[in-house]
Amino acid sequence: MLRLVLVEPEGEYNVGFIARLCKNFEVNELFIVRPKCNINSAIKFSARGEDILRSAKIVDTYEEALQGTGIKIATSSIANNKGDILRKAIFPWELSSIMKSERVALIFGRESVGLTREEISKADFLLFIPANPAYPTLNLSHAVGIVLYEIWKAKHEIKPKMTKESIDLLDKYSKILYGLIRKSDEDYALYIALKRALIKGINDEEEARTVIKFLRKLYTKFLHEDKE
Amino acid sequence: MLRLVLVEPEGEYNVGFIARLCKNFEVNELFIVRPKCNINSAIKFSARGEDILRSAKIVDTYEEALQGTGIKIATSSIANNKGDILRKAIFPWELSSIMKSERVALIFGRESVGLTREEISKADFLLFIPANPAYPTLNLSHAVGIVLYEIWKAKHEIKPKMTKESIDLLDKYSKILYGLIRKSDEDYALYIALKRALIKGINDEEEARTVIKFLRKLYTKFLHEDKE
Repeated sequence: MLRLVLVEPEGEYNVGFIARLCKNFEVNELFIVRPKCNINSAIKFSARGEDILRSAKIVDTYEEALQGTGIKIATSSIANNKGDILRKAIFPWELSSIMKSERVALIFGRESVGLTREEISKADFLLFIPANPAYPTLNLSHAVGIVLYEIWKAKHEIKPKMTKESIDLLDKYSKILYGLIRKSDEDYALYIALKRALIKGINDEEEARTVIKFLRKLYTKFLHEDKE
Repeated sequence: MLRLVLVEPEGEYNVGFIARLCKNFEVNELFIVRPKCNINSAIKFSARGEDILRSAKIVDTYEEALQGTGIKIATSSIANNKGDILRKAIFPWELSSIMKSERVALIFGRESVGLTREEISKADFLLFIPANPAYPTLNLSHAVGIVLYEIWKAKHEIKPKMTKESIDLLDKYSKILYGLIRKSDEDYALYIALKRALIKGINDEEEARTVIKFLRKLYTKFLHEDKE
């Protein structure tokens, strides 16, 4: 369950685009604290996210918007200032490892001035999207898009997976080949490194079968040589 | 060197936001083929990307926009349709592994109808941003933002890289081992698959050296057997 919280958004197009992004990336709840723009005018930018915008909760206080949420993540375009622990930030691709709460609140501030220090202090994490140091400030809805994309990606981890059988075979042939060359127990690291690299680097079942075929052929070649 | 190519963009806010994103993510060149909106009106959405918008190259043909580029990547919100090889797509996080050309063109189509099949057929890759299957169509500038973010992230990659020497050695030993087992020219796929999986799956120089050691030992074992 992911709740997106906008604090005093100023641009109608941003609010509309964000509703659309909520639909694109399957966000369950949209809360808006004291909107500074006309929500009805935002609808024309929301495309098929219109229902999300129409059912968004408009609230008067920041506290109301966070009520009932577990982990709270504030976002900022300023981060990692030395000596300022409040602004010690995490990156979007680290989100998947901290989204372990039932209800996560993802909080974005005003286009003009972001979130206040007090608002940030009430969150558990500060999220920062790295970009050109000379101009790191993304437009609000684009920042939302990137963060929602990263979360969606982590949640769906779409990259085609290998079958368990292929993983077992990669393990088997790495181990068998290792058995041919091992001299000491320390050589075990060779087997582990090869197996892990293959499991990480292979994208799908077809690639897996090709690499397994290679390893099996290498092994049978050895058997053959041994017999001669 | 990255060139962003927009084909017949229709929305001023999108063109403006995209110029801003180019600044945020350090894109060098913006080409616009036959814009269907007023570029001057787009400026107010470009923030500090104004200079990029003002120096954008407006061209009459798709071919002109691609001139001088190496790898060409078209984007689409429709992908992986069965039996349609043209639309067999890659994902944003795979971009880093194919961006090895000096000049990459990243091509985005019209808000309304995207790129034509003919336009896609002139590109080397089709890029697809995965999202909610019920509504995967992102707004144009948000799609651009996500792709530029992924490329920027890959370019600045905080994770330690392998040395060129290690990449060359992984290639060398994959090829040598393949030489031992090859029976026909089709076996070439085995070498390619192993090499690619290793380059993608190995995270740092230490892992690389361990795997190289394994492959080298396998090879010397073969040499040894042959002599007996």
